[in-house]
Amino acid sequence: MQFEVKILGANSANPVYNRFQTAQLLHIEPYYFLIDCGEATQHQLLKYKCKLTKIDHIFISHLHGDHYLGLVGLLSTMHLQGRTKDLHLFGPIGLDEIIVLQMKLSETILNYTIHFKGLDATKIETILDLDKLTVETIPLQHRIPCCGFLFREKLKKRRIIKDKFPPKGSLAHMAMLKQGQDVLDESGTLLYKNSEYTLPPKKSRSYAFCSDTILKTDNSTQLQHVDLLYHEATFLHDMLERAKQTFHTTALQAAQFASICQAKNLIIGHFSSRYRDITPLLIEARSEFINTQLAIEGNDYEIVEE
Amino acid sequence: MQFEVKILGANSANPVYNRFQTAQLLHIEPYYFLIDCGEATQHQLLKYKCKLTKIDHIFISHLHGDHYLGLVGLLSTMHLQGRTKDLHLFGPIGLDEIIVLQMKLSETILNYTIHFKGLDATKIETILDLDKLTVETIPLQHRIPCCGFLFREKLKKRRIIKDKFPPKGSLAHMAMLKQGQDVLDESGTLLYKNSEYTLPPKKSRSYAFCSDTILKTDNSTQLQHVDLLYHEATFLHDMLERAKQTFHTTALQAAQFASICQAKNLIIGHFSSRYRDITPLLIEARSEFINTQLAIEGNDYEIVEE
Repeated sequence: MQFEVKILGANSANPVYNRFQTAQLLHIEPYYFLIDCGEATQHQLLKYKCKLTKIDHIFISHLHGDHYLGLVGLLSTMHLQGRTKDLHLFGPIGLDEIIVLQMKLSETILNYTIHFKGLDATKIETILDLDKLTVETIPLQHRIPCCGFLFREKLKKRRIIKDKFPPKGSLAHMAMLKQGQDVLDESGTLLYKNSEYTLPPKKSRSYAFCSDTILKTDNSTQLQHVDLLYHEATFLHDMLERAKQTFHTTALQAAQFASICQAKNLIIGHFSSRYRDITPLLIEARSEFINTQLAIEGNDYEIVEE
Repeated sequence: MQFEVKILGANSANPVYNRFQTAQLLHIEPYYFLIDCGEATQHQLLKYKCKLTKIDHIFISHLHGDHYLGLVGLLSTMHLQGRTKDLHLFGPIGLDEIIVLQMKLSETILNYTIHFKGLDATKIETILDLDKLTVETIPLQHRIPCCGFLFREKLKKRRIIKDKFPPKGSLAHMAMLKQGQDVLDESGTLLYKNSEYTLPPKKSRSYAFCSDTILKTDNSTQLQHVDLLYHEATFLHDMLERAKQTFHTTALQAAQFASICQAKNLIIGHFSSRYRDITPLLIEARSEFINTQLAIEGNDYEIVEE
C-alpha cells in the first residue's frame, strides 16, 4: 500500500528560482489528498501528470495567498473537465466566502458539490475518518489562524502466517484471526490460537504537515513518533528574530522539533525567497536531525510499509 | 519609441501544452501595461524577466478565472517586494470586492494604494489619458460583462527637417514648428513657414485587445485602421455553433473582423484546450487575413514607428 507525498511547491511568499508556492499531493492508497494549493498548483499537477479526478479531498492550512491562491482555478478546471463527484474541502472559515464570491461574479455554477468544513485552528480535531485512516488538525501558531494536518493510518489487521494456516480454515476463520481473535468451534473448543497463527499487524504510518508556524513544542505530544514530518523552515537560525516576528520557524528549530517528536524523517520547506541556494538550510537542520531532506518540487517522499 | 506586446498566456479556460491563461504585457515606452492576469502570470513575468516595479497599470477584461486569477498573487508579490508607488487597476465592478475580501482574510494591508476604476462594458469610454496615449474600452459581448482595450498614441508632433532649420532658430521657434505653427517675428513678419521646415508627424500607433467575445462587427468603427489587433479565436470555424453558444469567436471570424477593421496585423489567441496543435487556427485565419500570427507565450509583437 503506497504512502507517499509529492512536493508541488515549497517556497514561501512568492515564486522564485523555479520554486513554487506551497502545495503537496499526498497519496495514501487509494486516496490522493491535496494539501495547500498555492498559485499554479494546477500547472504543477499537470506537469507531474497527476489527474485532478483522483483528488477528492483538499486541505488548506491558512489564508495567506501562497497557500491557497491556486484553489479557485483548480476548482474551475475540475468543473471544466466535467467533474460530477463530490469534493471535500477543509480550510479556514472565510475560504467558502472567497469561493462563493468568485463563482458568483463569474456566473459559474459548478457541476459538482463541494462539502466545506471550516476549521478551528485552536484545537486538535479529527476532521476526516475514512476506512483506513484519519486526518486530524494540528493547531499551529501563525499571524492568522492556521492548521497543520496529521494523516494517520488506523490500526491494521494481524497478518496470517501462510505456512501455518491449515487448508480447512474458512474465510470466516481468517477474518477472525486477522482481527486478533482466537477461533473456537461450536462447542467452544479452541481451534486456532491467534498468537500461533498470526503475526502482528504492519505498522500504521503517519504523515504530519506543519506550515506556517512558530516553533510550537507542545504539538510534539500529538506528533510523537510520526513517520514523516514536513515542517516549515523559512529561515536559517541566524534570522531567528525575523522568524519570530513573522511567526515562522528556522531550519534548526524544525530539526529540534523533529527530535522532540522522535520523528523518523523530516522534510523541510517553505523556504524564504532570500535563499537562492537552500543547501545551508539542509546542513543546519541535519546538524540537529540527521534524517532531514529538502522539499524539492517534483520529488516523492515515501513511507515504506514495515 | 518602443511599442510592443509580449504574450504571457494565450490559452482559454485551463492551462495545457505549456500554454498559459490570458495575460499580456504591453510596452508603450515608457509604460508597461498588464492586460489580463490569468493564474501564474507572475510566474510568466518572472520567466521573461519583466520587473513588476515597471507595471503601474493593470487592465482586466472580465471575471472569468482564466483572465484574472493571477491578480491577487501578483498584488501580494508587489507588496512583498516593497512597492510603495500607486497602482492603477481597471476592471469589472466586483473585482474590488474580491481583492478586499482576500486581503481582509489574510490580514494584509498593502504598502501601496490601488486606484480602482470599475468598467462599464456597454459603451466606449476613455479610461486613461496619459501624455502620449489614451486607453479606451471596447464593448465586447460575452457571457458576463467584458471589455476590450484600445491603446492609441496621441497625435505626434511634426518633425523638423534638420538640414533646413537655420542655426539662429531658438528652442521656442522649434517648439512652435513642431506644433504645426508658422514662426513670425515681433512685427508679424513670417520667419519660418511651417510646411517648409517640417515633415508630417510619425504615425500614431494603436493596439486593440479583444477577448472574450462573439464576433462583434459594430466594433469595427472604433477599431478602423488599427495597427495591431489581438482577437480571440477560441475555435476553428467548424465549431461555429459551439463558439456562438459560449460567446466566443472562430479563427475565420477573427480574420473577417480584422479585414472589416482594415487592421494592419492580427494576432489570434485564447485557444481552446481541444487544440494541441494550433496551426490549423492560423491557416484558417490566414485564408481570410494574411497578416495573421499566433499568440505564442514569450513572443513579442512590435508595431514599428513609421
